[in-house]
Amino acid sequence: MSQALLKNYVNGEWRLSSANEQIPVKNPATAEILSYVPLSPAEEVNQATDLAAEAFEIWRRVPPTERVQPLFKLKGLLEVHADEIARLITQECGKTLKESRGELQRAIENVEVACGIPTTMQGTVLEDIARGIDEFMIRQPLGVAAAIAPFNFPAMIPFWFMPYAIACGNTYLVKPSEKVPMTLQLIFELIDQAEFPPGVINLVNGAKETVDAILQHPKIRAISFVGSSPVARHVYAQAAAHGKRVQCQGGAKNPVIILPDADMEMTTRIVADSAFGCAGQRCLAASLAVTVGEAQTRFIEAIADAAATRVTGNGLNADVQMGPVISAQSKARIESLIQSGVNEGAKILVDGRNPQITGLDHGNFVTPTVLDNIPPDGEIAHTEIFGPVLGLMSVETVDEAIALVNQSPWGNMACLFTSSGAAARKFRYEAEAGNIGINIGVAAPMAFFPFSGWKDSFFGDLHGQSHHAVEFFTQTKVVVERWPKEWSRQF
Amino acid sequence: MSQALLKNYVNGEWRLSSANEQIPVKNPATAEILSYVPLSPAEEVNQATDLAAEAFEIWRRVPPTERVQPLFKLKGLLEVHADEIARLITQECGKTLKESRGELQRAIENVEVACGIPTTMQGTVLEDIARGIDEFMIRQPLGVAAAIAPFNFPAMIPFWFMPYAIACGNTYLVKPSEKVPMTLQLIFELIDQAEFPPGVINLVNGAKETVDAILQHPKIRAISFVGSSPVARHVYAQAAAHGKRVQCQGGAKNPVIILPDADMEMTTRIVADSAFGCAGQRCLAASLAVTVGEAQTRFIEAIADAAATRVTGNGLNADVQMGPVISAQSKARIESLIQSGVNEGAKILVDGRNPQITGLDHGNFVTPTVLDNIPPDGEIAHTEIFGPVLGLMSVETVDEAIALVNQSPWGNMACLFTSSGAAARKFRYEAEAGNIGINIGVAAPMAFFPFSGWKDSFFGDLHGQSHHAVEFFTQTKVVVERWPKEWSRQF
Amino acid sequence: MSQALLKNYVNGEWRLSSANEQIPVKNPATAEILSYVPLSPAEEVNQATDLAAEAFEIWRRVPPTERVQPLFKLKGLLEVHADEIARLITQECGKTLKESRGELQRAIENVEVACGIPTTMQGTVLEDIARGIDEFMIRQPLGVAAAIAPFNFPAMIPFWFMPYAIACGNTYLVKPSEKVPMTLQLIFELIDQAEFPPGVINLVNGAKETVDAILQHPKIRAISFVGSSPVARHVYAQAAAHGKRVQCQGGAKNPVIILPDADMEMTTRIVADSAFGCAGQRCLAASLAVTVGEAQTRFIEAIADAAATRVTGNGLNADVQMGPVISAQSKARIESLIQSGVNEGAKILVDGRNPQITGLDHGNFVTPTVLDNIPPDGEIAHTEIFGPVLGLMSVETVDEAIALVNQSPWGNMACLFTSSGAAARKFRYEAEAGNIGINIGVAAPMAFFPFSGWKDSFFGDLHGQSHHAVEFFTQTKVVVERWPKEWSRQF
Amino acid sequence: MSQALLKNYVNGEWRLSSANEQIPVKNPATAEILSYVPLSPAEEVNQATDLAAEAFEIWRRVPPTERVQPLFKLKGLLEVHADEIARLITQECGKTLKESRGELQRAIENVEVACGIPTTMQGTVLEDIARGIDEFMIRQPLGVAAAIAPFNFPAMIPFWFMPYAIACGNTYLVKPSEKVPMTLQLIFELIDQAEFPPGVINLVNGAKETVDAILQHPKIRAISFVGSSPVARHVYAQAAAHGKRVQCQGGAKNPVIILPDADMEMTTRIVADSAFGCAGQRCLAASLAVTVGEAQTRFIEAIADAAATRVTGNGLNADVQMGPVISAQSKARIESLIQSGVNEGAKILVDGRNPQITGLDHGNFVTPTVLDNIPPDGEIAHTEIFGPVLGLMSVETVDEAIALVNQSPWGNMACLFTSSGAAARKFRYEAEAGNIGINIGVAAPMAFFPFSGWKDSFFGDLHGQSHHAVEFFTQTKVVVERWPKEWSRQF
Repeated sequence: MSQALLKNYVNGEWRLSSANEQIPVKNPATAEILSYVPLSPAEEVNQATDLAAEAFEIWRRVPPTERVQPLFKLKGLLEVHADEIARLITQECGKTLKESRGELQRAIENVEVACGIPTTMQGTVLEDIARGIDEFMIRQPLGVAAAIAPFNFPAMIPFWFMPYAIACGNTYLVKPSEKVPMTLQLIFELIDQAEFPPGVINLVNGAKETVDAILQHPKIRAISFVGSSPVARHVYAQAAAHGKRVQCQGGAKNPVIILPDADMEMTTRIVADSAFGCAGQRCLAASLAVTVGEAQTRFIEAIADAAATRVTGNGLNADVQMGPVISAQSKARIESLIQSGVNEGAKILVDGRNPQITGLDHGNFVTPTVLDNIPPDGEIAHTEIFGPVLGLMSVETVDEAIALVNQSPWGNMACLFTSSGAAARKFRYEAEAGNIGINIGVAAPMAFFPFSGWKDSFFGDLHGQSHHAVEFFTQTKVVVERWPKEWSRQF
Repeated sequence: MSQALLKNYVNGEWRLSSANEQIPVKNPATAEILSYVPLSPAEEVNQATDLAAEAFEIWRRVPPTERVQPLFKLKGLLEVHADEIARLITQECGKTLKESRGELQRAIENVEVACGIPTTMQGTVLEDIARGIDEFMIRQPLGVAAAIAPFNFPAMIPFWFMPYAIACGNTYLVKPSEKVPMTLQLIFELIDQAEFPPGVINLVNGAKETVDAILQHPKIRAISFVGSSPVARHVYAQAAAHGKRVQCQGGAKNPVIILPDADMEMTTRIVADSAFGCAGQRCLAASLAVTVGEAQTRFIEAIADAAATRVTGNGLNADVQMGPVISAQSKARIESLIQSGVNEGAKILVDGRNPQITGLDHGNFVTPTVLDNIPPDGEIAHTEIFGPVLGLMSVETVDEAIALVNQSPWGNMACLFTSSGAAARKFRYEAEAGNIGINIGVAAPMAFFPFSGWKDSFFGDLHGQSHHAVEFFTQTKVVVERWPKEWSRQF
Repeated sequence: MSQALLKNYVNGEWRLSSANEQIPVKNPATAEILSYVPLSPAEEVNQATDLAAEAFEIWRRVPPTERVQPLFKLKGLLEVHADEIARLITQECGKTLKESRGELQRAIENVEVACGIPTTMQGTVLEDIARGIDEFMIRQPLGVAAAIAPFNFPAMIPFWFMPYAIACGNTYLVKPSEKVPMTLQLIFELIDQAEFPPGVINLVNGAKETVDAILQHPKIRAISFVGSSPVARHVYAQAAAHGKRVQCQGGAKNPVIILPDADMEMTTRIVADSAFGCAGQRCLAASLAVTVGEAQTRFIEAIADAAATRVTGNGLNADVQMGPVISAQSKARIESLIQSGVNEGAKILVDGRNPQITGLDHGNFVTPTVLDNIPPDGEIAHTEIFGPVLGLMSVETVDEAIALVNQSPWGNMACLFTSSGAAARKFRYEAEAGNIGINIGVAAPMAFFPFSGWKDSFFGDLHGQSHHAVEFFTQTKVVVERWPKEWSRQF
Repeated sequence: MSQALLKNYVNGEWRLSSANEQIPVKNPATAEILSYVPLSPAEEVNQATDLAAEAFEIWRRVPPTERVQPLFKLKGLLEVHADEIARLITQECGKTLKESRGELQRAIENVEVACGIPTTMQGTVLEDIARGIDEFMIRQPLGVAAAIAPFNFPAMIPFWFMPYAIACGNTYLVKPSEKVPMTLQLIFELIDQAEFPPGVINLVNGAKETVDAILQHPKIRAISFVGSSPVARHVYAQAAAHGKRVQCQGGAKNPVIILPDADMEMTTRIVADSAFGCAGQRCLAASLAVTVGEAQTRFIEAIADAAATRVTGNGLNADVQMGPVISAQSKARIESLIQSGVNEGAKILVDGRNPQITGLDHGNFVTPTVLDNIPPDGEIAHTEIFGPVLGLMSVETVDEAIALVNQSPWGNMACLFTSSGAAARKFRYEAEAGNIGINIGVAAPMAFFPFSGWKDSFFGDLHGQSHHAVEFFTQTKVVVERWPKEWSRQF
């Protein structure tokens, strides 16, 4: 598919976009152009939506037990093609092959959970809410729904939403990030084989105009967005202004708290993986490590060492532990934020700016960076860097550490490292973040739990995955029935 | 309390508002001034919210089993004072005593369901999401939440939200309609006796400025609104623009379909109660009756007769079947809409404009009105009148009738009268409305089901009442825990 | 595998039984001997159980998400081999190929539902049952469980239990009917390919001694039985006397009620399929048709015609609509019961005894039989015939019909044919049977609902399939935790 | 009521039994005769059951929302009369007033949870299990159910079952222990005021003949038993032999494990309360304390001191911390078991046999007793003493401690005292008991969780309380409906 012009997938067929503009998709490790992605105009969104709306009239009448059959197939196809997909993720997104495979595994898990829809979509019923009157609540699909996806998990994030939407009887439209559109291009080839009826799942490539068309189309009933917090907030407001149901997942600045009784070897390994894995481009990346008391000295040395020795390079190489960041702009922004931190008074323990990666002179590399003494009220303490940069802070008590967590505007994740049951309980009770880890570095909920961002990391009420996705992608219909019993007397 | 200046209830005590403006609360049957309500300024909302936010820190730590104890008490108090409350509803709102008691009963049912919060608020847990790693999801309260209530159910509607919010550990602020603020004034006297800690439930009277302050206060995390659709849409967009979770219930134009095999006597009685009960001022009032085939002739005569003979007057009188509408402005608007209907070509079968109600010359009365031959594409077919006006239409098939239902922008309720199981199934499957009645005139879901408006009758995803309220008033927190088993080897 | 001696599958390998006795498995259509099945002695049950108990210690520690992977595989394998399995069912059990495929489809659906175990097995949790004390309930597997299966659905019935048991973390032992052991022999070849660890699923062939060993082995914690009611009752008592949890599904005499407003063409077709499908050897076969009022005359003629024209023969032939009954003994018993009915006063409308089926002289054939005027208090009205025999009764009102249903000792299924919503509601509210059909002939619950026999058709409380199976195959463990918060002060 | 002959409460009225035998009810602290209880003959059980079966036909048709209203009333009445009831419990049962009030509180909590039945009793529904076919599952009550209650919690234990049974629409019969029948006598006076219809809840006093009649009556569909394990096993087998659903809770020998990192002061206090509270007559009493490693020395001294200083006497006195055991026979049995322990080699640290309690010479007193060095394989390690006797054992590792827990035939409760999250997780994962405490002495599940005995501490599958009780007291009815859509074409 190399250097090909990517297509849209609409109504069960691949279509060339009529877009005036096509932008290159580059391998962030090599700057090689992999393909070109069209920036589809509004009318193509409208067309795809209208066709999806037509397909909805058919698809919603397909029994749930049949609607999950193509999902069972898709699970099998994704597994068979796992290596191929992982390789493509690495090529366009930069992460290591292992990370790409892990991401794909998470996508598959969502397909598995969505296969349970005949159970999870059930409504409820009570006889005799009054004498002879019964009431029940059924769940019916909404119509057309859409996802607007970010660049950092090209395979996984659409699967937080799409399998549930489809299984519930909706039809769907995905707009991938224009930075990493090839992974879904490949996955949609598998979707094409999975025997969904035409129009059930659609792919429209594009950027801002494409997004705006999605936000405005009256037949799109529900929108799922994942991206930065400012855009998430904007999409939330815009979709609401158009009367839609909407869930928007934003950014984060995720703290990990390290108590003196933590297993320091394990903690360091896990925190390093969290902070530097996927080059820090995860909404669940640890980006602030807060040590309590005497944990400080032991942790600092260990983490600096872990950062300094992490092998950075092309994710396709098996011995590479970290790949590039997504773009040259991103690299520039990260390096500038590191400098801001230094300017604010942070002490740079490991400096990953402008590294030399042999043979990859054009790659967007920043190597693991550690900043100590982050000022709690400075900019860097509250700015999402979205790169392999870990800030360190130190406090004297658990209470201070939790206070630090809670004064953040964000609430995506907070983790604690300890061996104390009491500290863990206090932390999970008090910490104002929706995904909590205890001795865990990336507290990503499994597909059968909601991905529970809080505060400015999430706008809406129902999250992706699990029963939340089922609730989001269905509307409840309550039926109150009276069949006077005298009526059966006639027989 | 007559002619008194109403107070706010903040932090467990009654407070006089510093409002510059107080407006009279009038009995719509007599125009008698019952009291004056202050239009509280933004700063009083801010103050109440800040105090509620302080109370939240205490209240969320009270165990759920204890949090429901004042609700159990409140149920008892509301029952003991039922007659008194019902009388006050009738006085300020106009509906009959029986309707007022019915409304209060629905409020109480929501308290009963909220008493089950130790069961319904439970999260979920799975051991071994990976070897030795457990995951669980707990529900935690949000903080301060608020309701903005309409005039038509002064007692019931705040209870679609408040008992759940409180039971889940939030603190709460209610702004009643400035047209009917006295009912909550009385109910808050009972709340005051129910031994909630100070600040848990608060009452702030007011109008637009008060509402705007609620929409803007950053500590108010969730907003529940019930009112007209244009305002619902506005509140939805505004609350979202401020990053809040929000659910907004709007208006409706509810159709009832009458098949030839319906029990015509029962149908007429039920449809008349639905259309003219509460003087048509219900978001679940039937306002369009669509007869299919030969049902037409039998229904028209019967409903015209039911409309013409309905006893209208002061709701305090036991033999009165319908009271006034809420205000002189409302009366004028309703009568003007009736004229629009006539102008569009509708035939007026029963004309309730400008009736003479003996001894109640200053009341806002419109008596039951029936308009036949409503043009399907005219204004009157799609405008919520919110008065005792029933429009009639006639079609030849069930399919046409359902098409009429589904072309409406609204989706609050749709009812079918039939003896056919097949027609009922088709209707509940196809009709695009969230509250469906089969041989039911007012398909109001019981408190243990969500009140499920669709389309322009509702903006949001989670509705009031039932598990939807629990989901709306809590945020999920997912905890991923690893406790390496080697750690227990030390012992 | 023809005429082979069947093996047991224990601890992941095929084993020859040391049984002294092997009995022939015959094709009921041809009397051809297909294979020989060993009657495994108690010690082989004990050995298999002990190995399954060892496997349990490993299997319960495999995460649920991993435990379902072999089930996903098994679904695929069963689909790939569907024709082969269906053919074998038909050969040893006699039913038509279409019926065999339908049966297998039901088995697969249970695998699909069991794949949802990471969702359906979740426990629940509540914070702060008292200040600082949390409580949660997790579900843990029991250990070894076992199914004792009947002859009429050799593929389907073990799958009502086994997939759930396994997915929940138990290990399992199945004893198929010695009359139809080959189907599971083939299915276990697929199980062998599905990559379950050794010992997780085991197959032990045998008869009474084998069953007794299962009932007595202390490590078998739960027993699922399906068979005749007397044996079900016996197994229930015996398993309970050994302290086990137990669910036993028995026989039935299922009534269908036909109202005058039913669609008679559709009703006849469905009732004939229910009564004569699988040669009447289904616990959900209609065996009594009760007409109300004027339905009688129209139904009698139509059903007699349907019975007389049903093509009976070798189920392998595509144009055959009904196969033989399971054995010569069964044929003799059925024919003797028909005679009893005649002796009691029933009028034989269609007599299917001793038919001549060309080329199948040795097959156990009884063709569709219709007995009219079944005396309500006679033996035939209450005896399960388990053959293609439909009894007719006639009453004047729905109330009488329901009374007939409810005076039966059984409660497996009751169906109603009508177009009346009121009659349907009354019937489902009043009829004392756990599987109710409205215009349905075989009201078999889908896998995501419990198979809900009542009265003497079921002994126990939790049924097979759905959340009932999850509850049956797990034991709840409630954990109450206190972690005094002062303890975290040390940090 | 002193020295009165107690009555039965049947069909809404108090009835004198025709029993030939009446036995005295004695205050175990004073040997004073408080009343006489009739041993009702089988025919009175039969009569009560038949009347309850008649009442069932009415009660099951009362809407669930109405059925819970008397339960809401009963909660209020129990609270108003709490002191009076607690006093009576203390008088006939011996425990302290504080313990009696605690017990009553637990009873009330079950009433509260049962008030949620309109939510918790809901069934489920799915549209389109096949095109045009819907399926739903409703829960319907069983008929008459019965509880056979033990002496140790005269108020609480019947409430594990009865409120749920009633709320679900069953009618009920309670047989209290003949040793403590007066508490229910008083509670039934409140039940009488709560406005249940006649026959819904019935009280029949008696002993063995009464129990046998309950086990045999065909109209009693479900039995809940709590008592000793041998009787529990017998009742389980007998009820099953009569085809009933049945749940039987038996005895226990509950271990608490104390790790070296436990808070020893807190642990000692909690373990002492668990072992000696209610004079050890609780199925959740700690009766074996297993110290790990160096915890041994610190714990032994502390617990011996706690035992020696516990104030024993008449529970009515405010400063008394422990009351008598239930009877002279019980006292003799306990003292004999203590001697057995000594004979087996245990070292008696505190000897509570034959104490002198001033002014209470005739009371059945055994004061707190501590036996060290319990031999793990001896009789005393596995025999339920049901008195204030704590055995001590000591091991070197957590693994050994868990092995001790798991080799027990019982599985009611196991508790761990530690500050380690890892040890707690390992324990809850591995310990084979259904009620687990972490730093908790009496791990009694709240009413919204099932009371989860395992192994020989429970026979059955569904436990008392919570959703388990709802499942136990209802039978699922699955309805499969087809309403061909062509049928609606006629209109």
